[in-house]
Amino acid sequence: MTDAAGLFDPVLARGAVRAAVSDGAWVAALLEVEGALAAAAADVGALDRADAEAVADACRRPVDPGRLGEASAASGNPVVPLVAGLREDLRAAGADTAASGVHRGATSQDVMDTAAMLVARRARDAIAADLRAAADAAAALADAHRDVPAAGRTLLQQAAPITVGLRAAGWCAGLDAAVAALGAWRPAVQLGGAVGTLAAFDGRGREVRAALARRLDLAEPVLAWHTERGRVAELAGLLGRAGAAVGTVATDLVLLAQTEVGEVREDVPGRGGSSTLPHKRNPVAAVSARAAAIAAPGLVASVLGAASLHEHERAAGPWHAEWRPLVELLRTVGSGASWLADALGHLAVDTDRVAAALDVTGGLLLAEQATTGLRARLGHAAAKDLVTAAASAAQDEHRPFADVLADALAALDDPPADPAAEVRALLDPAGAVGEAAALVDDLLRSREVSP
Amino acid sequence: MTDAAGLFDPVLARGAVRAAVSDGAWVAALLEVEGALAAAAADVGALDRADAEAVADACRRPVDPGRLGEASAASGNPVVPLVAGLREDLRAAGADTAASGVHRGATSQDVMDTAAMLVARRARDAIAADLRAAADAAAALADAHRDVPAAGRTLLQQAAPITVGLRAAGWCAGLDAAVAALGAWRPAVQLGGAVGTLAAFDGRGREVRAALARRLDLAEPVLAWHTERGRVAELAGLLGRAGAAVGTVATDLVLLAQTEVGEVREDVPGRGGSSTLPHKRNPVAAVSARAAAIAAPGLVASVLGAASLHEHERAAGPWHAEWRPLVELLRTVGSGASWLADALGHLAVDTDRVAAALDVTGGLLLAEQATTGLRARLGHAAAKDLVTAAASAAQDEHRPFADVLADALAALDDPPADPAAEVRALLDPAGAVGEAAALVDDLLRSREVSP
Amino acid sequence: MTDAAGLFDPVLARGAVRAAVSDGAWVAALLEVEGALAAAAADVGALDRADAEAVADACRRPVDPGRLGEASAASGNPVVPLVAGLREDLRAAGADTAASGVHRGATSQDVMDTAAMLVARRARDAIAADLRAAADAAAALADAHRDVPAAGRTLLQQAAPITVGLRAAGWCAGLDAAVAALGAWRPAVQLGGAVGTLAAFDGRGREVRAALARRLDLAEPVLAWHTERGRVAELAGLLGRAGAAVGTVATDLVLLAQTEVGEVREDVPGRGGSSTLPHKRNPVAAVSARAAAIAAPGLVASVLGAASLHEHERAAGPWHAEWRPLVELLRTVGSGASWLADALGHLAVDTDRVAAALDVTGGLLLAEQATTGLRARLGHAAAKDLVTAAASAAQDEHRPFADVLADALAALDDPPADPAAEVRALLDPAGAVGEAAALVDDLLRSREVSP
Amino acid sequence: MTDAAGLFDPVLARGAVRAAVSDGAWVAALLEVEGALAAAAADVGALDRADAEAVADACRRPVDPGRLGEASAASGNPVVPLVAGLREDLRAAGADTAASGVHRGATSQDVMDTAAMLVARRARDAIAADLRAAADAAAALADAHRDVPAAGRTLLQQAAPITVGLRAAGWCAGLDAAVAALGAWRPAVQLGGAVGTLAAFDGRGREVRAALARRLDLAEPVLAWHTERGRVAELAGLLGRAGAAVGTVATDLVLLAQTEVGEVREDVPGRGGSSTLPHKRNPVAAVSARAAAIAAPGLVASVLGAASLHEHERAAGPWHAEWRPLVELLRTVGSGASWLADALGHLAVDTDRVAAALDVTGGLLLAEQATTGLRARLGHAAAKDLVTAAASAAQDEHRPFADVLADALAALDDPPADPAAEVRALLDPAGAVGEAAALVDDLLRSREVSP
Repeated sequence: MTDAAGLFDPVLARGAVRAAVSDGAWVAALLEVEGALAAAAADVGALDRADAEAVADACRRPVDPGRLGEASAASGNPVVPLVAGLREDLRAAGADTAASGVHRGATSQDVMDTAAMLVARRARDAIAADLRAAADAAAALADAHRDVPAAGRTLLQQAAPITVGLRAAGWCAGLDAAVAALGAWRPAVQLGGAVGTLAAFDGRGREVRAALARRLDLAEPVLAWHTERGRVAELAGLLGRAGAAVGTVATDLVLLAQTEVGEVREDVPGRGGSSTLPHKRNPVAAVSARAAAIAAPGLVASVLGAASLHEHERAAGPWHAEWRPLVELLRTVGSGASWLADALGHLAVDTDRVAAALDVTGGLLLAEQATTGLRARLGHAAAKDLVTAAASAAQDEHRPFADVLADALAALDDPPADPAAEVRALLDPAGAVGEAAALVDDLLRSREVSP
Repeated sequence: MTDAAGLFDPVLARGAVRAAVSDGAWVAALLEVEGALAAAAADVGALDRADAEAVADACRRPVDPGRLGEASAASGNPVVPLVAGLREDLRAAGADTAASGVHRGATSQDVMDTAAMLVARRARDAIAADLRAAADAAAALADAHRDVPAAGRTLLQQAAPITVGLRAAGWCAGLDAAVAALGAWRPAVQLGGAVGTLAAFDGRGREVRAALARRLDLAEPVLAWHTERGRVAELAGLLGRAGAAVGTVATDLVLLAQTEVGEVREDVPGRGGSSTLPHKRNPVAAVSARAAAIAAPGLVASVLGAASLHEHERAAGPWHAEWRPLVELLRTVGSGASWLADALGHLAVDTDRVAAALDVTGGLLLAEQATTGLRARLGHAAAKDLVTAAASAAQDEHRPFADVLADALAALDDPPADPAAEVRALLDPAGAVGEAAALVDDLLRSREVSP
Repeated sequence: MTDAAGLFDPVLARGAVRAAVSDGAWVAALLEVEGALAAAAADVGALDRADAEAVADACRRPVDPGRLGEASAASGNPVVPLVAGLREDLRAAGADTAASGVHRGATSQDVMDTAAMLVARRARDAIAADLRAAADAAAALADAHRDVPAAGRTLLQQAAPITVGLRAAGWCAGLDAAVAALGAWRPAVQLGGAVGTLAAFDGRGREVRAALARRLDLAEPVLAWHTERGRVAELAGLLGRAGAAVGTVATDLVLLAQTEVGEVREDVPGRGGSSTLPHKRNPVAAVSARAAAIAAPGLVASVLGAASLHEHERAAGPWHAEWRPLVELLRTVGSGASWLADALGHLAVDTDRVAAALDVTGGLLLAEQATTGLRARLGHAAAKDLVTAAASAAQDEHRPFADVLADALAALDDPPADPAAEVRALLDPAGAVGEAAALVDDLLRSREVSP
Repeated sequence: MTDAAGLFDPVLARGAVRAAVSDGAWVAALLEVEGALAAAAADVGALDRADAEAVADACRRPVDPGRLGEASAASGNPVVPLVAGLREDLRAAGADTAASGVHRGATSQDVMDTAAMLVARRARDAIAADLRAAADAAAALADAHRDVPAAGRTLLQQAAPITVGLRAAGWCAGLDAAVAALGAWRPAVQLGGAVGTLAAFDGRGREVRAALARRLDLAEPVLAWHTERGRVAELAGLLGRAGAAVGTVATDLVLLAQTEVGEVREDVPGRGGSSTLPHKRNPVAAVSARAAAIAAPGLVASVLGAASLHEHERAAGPWHAEWRPLVELLRTVGSGASWLADALGHLAVDTDRVAAALDVTGGLLLAEQATTGLRARLGHAAAKDLVTAAASAAQDEHRPFADVLADALAALDDPPADPAAEVRALLDPAGAVGEAAALVDDLLRSREVSP
């Protein structure tokens, strides 16, 4: 097996997807398809059951991916030497009729495409599992911090209060949606023979195809899709979507972990530290998740570019062009999902820093709420004027907005009894988070009803 | 209206999508959303119905996109000046409470995103309609030429016979699948206020959101998706898939229309001809469809790239980065679908050239069938040897394979009575197309049960 | 002229490039090429000078891009109806020989490609000018803040001190390099006739080509490059590089402008403010520049994708596929460059916030320098141990690192006379910026010697 | 060494680039940089020469890439464990001062980026060598077939004659240009320390940087480019351009090798054949080259996307996001170049089929030349009318154009003596190829003067 981790794999190909798309996994899938094809032929009476079982046995012997690859250069794909090897093995064992039953009626692309579906399904399932783990961690954060006010930021400027819970709920919602979308992808069996007519099946091609689909638990297409790559293009799009879901959460994490913000950190002993810079805690998991997401869109374009160009019955280049970008895309999205699950699973929220951020603007973040709160006392226009003037003065004079506002209230003709207390109430962020709690509850409830 | 066709539009922005994504359509959608938002507020009792109607009236006045655009540079999006204009109009008309009801509780992105969903849905529907028209034309071709043998080609080499009907059925299947996939996309309303908390709705934000979703016939999300761009990313992926479906069919058409192949041509008087090159018939529609498809994958990458980068409550750049690539993507896929419907709708199949192509190899295309046909007479191994030897001789001696094969049969110890007749039967392409007819029937039947 | 600004143009198509790539600019360039082609023919004696001048006159009449576009659908490009119109005009004016001299020997793609080079060169020059303005502004900042210490950040964690000057010098270096790279791009004339043989020039094709290149100040290629799109692909790559240069600086700006960091802000009255959120100052220019950069990579992929697919003498789709992505790419990079020049040109550095950031970690940012500074007194190992212990204690006990360190020094067997003063010296960021000043000087000097 | 060929490598990662970008090559480059860094420190007197040599020795011991990768997950890059290992080795050998000299002053990214430049340069050189070999083969074809007329094709329709030589010259020109462009790329050393200030070099950082650049034969940048990825972006663009050069030639080859065209085939015994389809000769090399080119544009977008996003002194994700796409891009372009050199180096031109293609339209391809040739006899208008009428009649009546034209000449009031002979002369393709021969000569001459 040549599937040892590569130099960059622990950072850029983390999680279960690396093995699921490895050369070894591909070869195993190719052998699984050849075995199932013989069995499917037997299912419909087109091959002796004993021969089918001999083929299946032959498909269980180990095959070295590297050597198989070498042998594929002359024909352009690994199925040709794989089939030749299987037949040779069977003939060497005296199983001549089984040997002639190997790959019967199929073309190389039938086997490669069906194997690709198996590989992609396993990788998709691994990605979905990691995304779900990440979503679960986000949901737990949303629940735990449902009512903790925090600074909301738009265009990277503090804008108005949110809650930590709503922030985490937003992460959860995006990840859940990506999982659901990935789950709707349906891989299909490929079987058409050389040009899609099933001509070498003696009239039983569609029956064999149905039996093969049953055996591999794949959808049965109406026609061969040798050059109709909609399934592959759709998967690429969904992986792009999943990568975006990872990227946007990871971006939040690296920004919230900034030294100057510090609202979260990854709490994994021994990771992200620096002996020379003791204050530094690199959010390694979020950084790696982000890196994975950044690489994805171009790979989607590569897969789609190939999918757009297939011609006639089987294509001269676009098909081969699909393999590596699809594998890379699965791998990078899988790595991102794995790192993100790790990051969210180990996320420590620093509620002191969360609270401190709300004070950075000296209460200006609550200016809008103060206006609303003063409407009853002053009327709409006067409330707005008073607050706007106080805000300007606070900025110009570098004084806390709360102090300026208290002075302004005290200077009213009919001042409140305790202006400072009134200001504290007006500028309480907990009163400014709208329906955040209910939205978190909605999100958590939406997860219960899902499958 | 600045939506006159641009210089490249008739070639690269054909069909209904161009208008559906035009500046005028965007402004109309923005106004529709502002009107519906006021009406939704009235629906739940948060605004007087009369005020809501006054807002709706104001939203019906024409707005110049270019001038609105100019006014948007200071804030970064067109909603800010649009809302300012609406309020001004209403105040000028003395409708002060209506003026203060405009845009109440919403943030600019709420309105832009909801309008984008309306624009995208209309464009999507137009694309789907053109793809369906293309698919219908392909289905008609599949039906009409169900049993016409043709050369199947793999890696651009003739490989084995297919039928014209199966080829067209393959086009139809890919286009149908793209339509179905696009149809499953569900646009949603966007409403969250400045930071997604619905804080400025006095506790009725979720009610207003539900009413707005009902009025615009959009899905209601659990949370605001200001920075969770899964819906947009998914649409981009589906458009990429649709573009690939267009591209692969268009590629077939330009290849089949080659001078040396000539199996199809676009039969549109006055198009594609050349006064100086009278023999030339450029397949303009297929060429233009292909061009549209080639441009799509990169645009998908742009949309996905932006979607991966959103941060916090509303993003500093990635959101704006989405607009033009999404519009361009809708436009190019729409143009491709429109041209392809035109190309397939006017496609003339030259059955003489189709038949001639089958003879190009002098019958070698049927070598495999001949082997199969001779098995009963000669046994498997001898049949294969005889055919292989004849094929080699035909190529080496530049003689028709049929003649060489007839000679070989005549030279057998036990020759057939009429070797030439036997060879004609062995090399009849109609016998070599496997289950092509049944596959075409399956495809046509699958279309009946679809909605 | 249909080149009024569109709805999104002021945000997403700012600056001189929008006009340079407008439909009007394209038509003007097409006419310029037709006029120059006739003049070039006259230059080598292949056309009467008077006829050439009549053609040039005809090329000065206004042509409506929209109507020209409509007329181009049948042939697939606007040159066919443009030439027809020119000939008609000349014939109507009785200039029959001039009419027959229009476009003589050329094919549509000759004229489109040469016009595209003119359009692209003008857009490139506009982009370079804006990038240079941005670089100049960055250089001025580097000079003005050459010695101002600031927090350097890696993986978004404060890491060690830099200077504001070095930061700005880094921006300048990247922008300068992008300008230089763009400047090295050499557009070339296209002239080959229908299939690149110059067959319709009576043996004087290469002479005409040379004359045309001279007239338009374009390079003369050895062969026609109808399907060899290296020049276009190279331009796309350089624009991608320029977009990256814009994006990385704009990303710095939006991050430095964060409420919690506040080291810079865009100082443009009336832009980026918010009446309801008085503390908010959106860095509109940097946000828009960033948005422009995010959209670019996908467009590069579209142009390269098309360039990879051209076939034979002139291509069936890939050529048309190039136009819109190339225009969009020029436009978005141009918009980004323009916004960035604006952002850097109006950038206010808040030196108080810059200094405050250095204190966020209570001196931990200087831990490494402290270790180095104590080596002479304590030896390497003891110095490191003492500093590391102090850093840990500061973090664990939530005390300023400086205080903990001073206590540790005071507790030494041989303590310094004034531990607090010693600590102040050890933690002076000005001593920790290495060769920052010299590097700034190097950068500024490198700009003097450039052309 | 884990650099055995993978399953898809012989098809998709052919040639010398695979090894040049392998994990083993990366580790070797990292060690080379660490060794050179110590030597450079010694060069300027900042490290004892003996210590530098001890470091260099330590850098010569084998390191397992897989295990190094595993150890890199905690820090996010392989340099951290590599340096730890080197120091450990040296300390274990008692070379403590050498151990402390390892990596002195540098940050991980300094070493990774410099190593990446070494890796990329070697891969670039290998790509250039294969492209040059492909260009040489094309030049030889251009020379050998300089005057052989062939059908020129536009929009995949036969348009007018060219020569085989001119076609091959076009391939050569594009490949030569790609080589020249790649050759102009200048990799640079990276050295800045943690935040680019060279703070840990005791004031000799720029000297060490210069010495390091000399030792590794890399350019010396003015500033560290940790987040200014122009060099990387430029390389990606140039690789995209090179991929396009490969793709367009490979596309020509697969089209010319079509069964119905057959003008070329790849003459490699034992490759591309099919036992069951004896007439089939798959152009495996061209197909594989085309596949490689199709995958490239998306990878360029990935590299550029990452390059656009770097922030501050060292980036949180975009840097890591660069590694795999860059390696994949080098690999796929390298594979394409290698396959293309193979395809062109073994290309057999079938001059019979080339000549036959010219007859496919029965002489219509020469209609334009016939018009020109008849002008002297008939005048411009009458010549055009006669030829146009003959062309229409030939198409309508399915007769050879030459025969119809001969009849038309015979029917003139003043017919030529031998109409058939006249027609043969009029329709001689050798007279219709314009300046093709001179253009080929120009191209071949342009190669002599190049370095």
